[in-house]
Amino acid sequence: MKQKSVDLSLFKANGFDKGASAIKRILWYYTNAFFVKPSWNVFMGFKLSLYRLFGAKIGGGMVIKNNVNVKSPWNLVAGNNVWLGEKSWIDNLDKVILGNNVCISQGALLLTGNHDYTKPDFPYLNNQIVIEDGAWIGAKAIVCAGVVVHTHAVLCAGSVATKDLDAFCIYQGNPAIKIRERVIESKTSK
Amino acid sequence: MKQKSVDLSLFKANGFDKGASAIKRILWYYTNAFFVKPSWNVFMGFKLSLYRLFGAKIGGGMVIKNNVNVKSPWNLVAGNNVWLGEKSWIDNLDKVILGNNVCISQGALLLTGNHDYTKPDFPYLNNQIVIEDGAWIGAKAIVCAGVVVHTHAVLCAGSVATKDLDAFCIYQGNPAIKIRERVIESKTSK
Amino acid sequence: MKQKSVDLSLFKANGFDKGASAIKRILWYYTNAFFVKPSWNVFMGFKLSLYRLFGAKIGGGMVIKNNVNVKSPWNLVAGNNVWLGEKSWIDNLDKVILGNNVCISQGALLLTGNHDYTKPDFPYLNNQIVIEDGAWIGAKAIVCAGVVVHTHAVLCAGSVATKDLDAFCIYQGNPAIKIRERVIESKTSK
Repeated sequence: MKQKSVDLSLFKANGFDKGASAIKRILWYYTNAFFVKPSWNVFMGFKLSLYRLFGAKIGGGMVIKNNVNVKSPWNLVAGNNVWLGEKSWIDNLDKVILGNNVCISQGALLLTGNHDYTKPDFPYLNNQIVIEDGAWIGAKAIVCAGVVVHTHAVLCAGSVATKDLDAFCIYQGNPAIKIRERVIESKTSK
Repeated sequence: MKQKSVDLSLFKANGFDKGASAIKRILWYYTNAFFVKPSWNVFMGFKLSLYRLFGAKIGGGMVIKNNVNVKSPWNLVAGNNVWLGEKSWIDNLDKVILGNNVCISQGALLLTGNHDYTKPDFPYLNNQIVIEDGAWIGAKAIVCAGVVVHTHAVLCAGSVATKDLDAFCIYQGNPAIKIRERVIESKTSK
Repeated sequence: MKQKSVDLSLFKANGFDKGASAIKRILWYYTNAFFVKPSWNVFMGFKLSLYRLFGAKIGGGMVIKNNVNVKSPWNLVAGNNVWLGEKSWIDNLDKVILGNNVCISQGALLLTGNHDYTKPDFPYLNNQIVIEDGAWIGAKAIVCAGVVVHTHAVLCAGSVATKDLDAFCIYQGNPAIKIRERVIESKTSK
């Protein structure tokens, strides 16, 4: 039996809601390219204001390191004390919902985009990402579309989360598997 | 028995054909740096023209997202309807040959460079990459030198292909292993 | 028993020595952003001079490809004939000590930063990285904080070193495991 084949010229962004008008998307694209992503801008309050101006719902205490790339601020919800590491990339074609005290380390990718590879026209299969309170996404790790990272889970450096991560557990590898529990002590350091 | 050691000062690019004159390589380097890679350039037709001007053989319908980095256009051959995702990196010291309807997702790396680590002078062991019709290289995945990705194979996000990928199969991990078959339905979506 | 939770607002960089004054750090940040990292600067001698001016101890014969990112030159020690590949990222909050004839390939990350995820205030757990003579860190590989890469070890493309790597051995995967020995022949190529 001959296999069917893919024809990318048939692709249409059917039923995909970009969440903002074309003008808003273009304005954000250039605002991001010239005023948010570039290395000269180390001013976190300024960057935060621009995210909010374009529709992000963000709590207090956000830390925004350099060269952070947020695709669609209108698809970003974040609680208090969220950290976005250097060169972290929130590729939010769909919603990205971050709880309180979430750390996204340097170079990490939140990947809401996906395609249905069983269809000849390779349609979008985008899905949201939820990262709950106290979770840590390690450096250069990837969280895939549709994943829920439950509270205080840890995804180790360079690892790829393809399924939900259990609360208070550490995950490593590609695909990431549970390697141990995370126990948090009562006392702070010092 | 004492082991031999590596001396990188002995390295010479012996027998390595860069595929273009020094002037052409410098011209491309700065054309790419100032007119193709930068975020301001969202004009796919313009980028495509520059790739072709510097020797790329590319069919119709190419989608070139932002911040794509092609090392050597004269070493790039691509069929129809090929997609190059945001920040994808075609590091083609050697030839990269893409079929029709190939999707290279965001942040993926096609890595034609390699070194012979058994030699004291660490010589090049570069090799071409072939990606056949309908294949999909996932976000931040890496295809190593010498690999043939057979038709309609899929390399999952963050995975590393070190050997040839079989047609109509899905691969995941580092090194990537076959996890299932890809069956494509007759009907397009909607 | 209810688990304790993380509160990132409690984070303080307790006992963390940045290794340079605030003025020096700001000066380096912008020097790097405008004169070292950008694609226009292909002048290795110029980049090397700036690394040294800001405190790096580097031997002869260094190769510095484009878009290399060194966080803190005052925390960088390198021997002779060291190669830093395109877009390699030395994120040296703590010391990075490279021997002679070390190759850091394109897109690799030396990650000295870490956090103690067992504490509510998520304190730094930074640690130095040592890479001994003749070792090779592959493209887009990650070396984690505290790791010693012993002489002539190889970390394959996209792999993640979370523990020390034995001398003259090849490691692959995430976490990287030993897959074979590295035997170096007496003769150079040609």
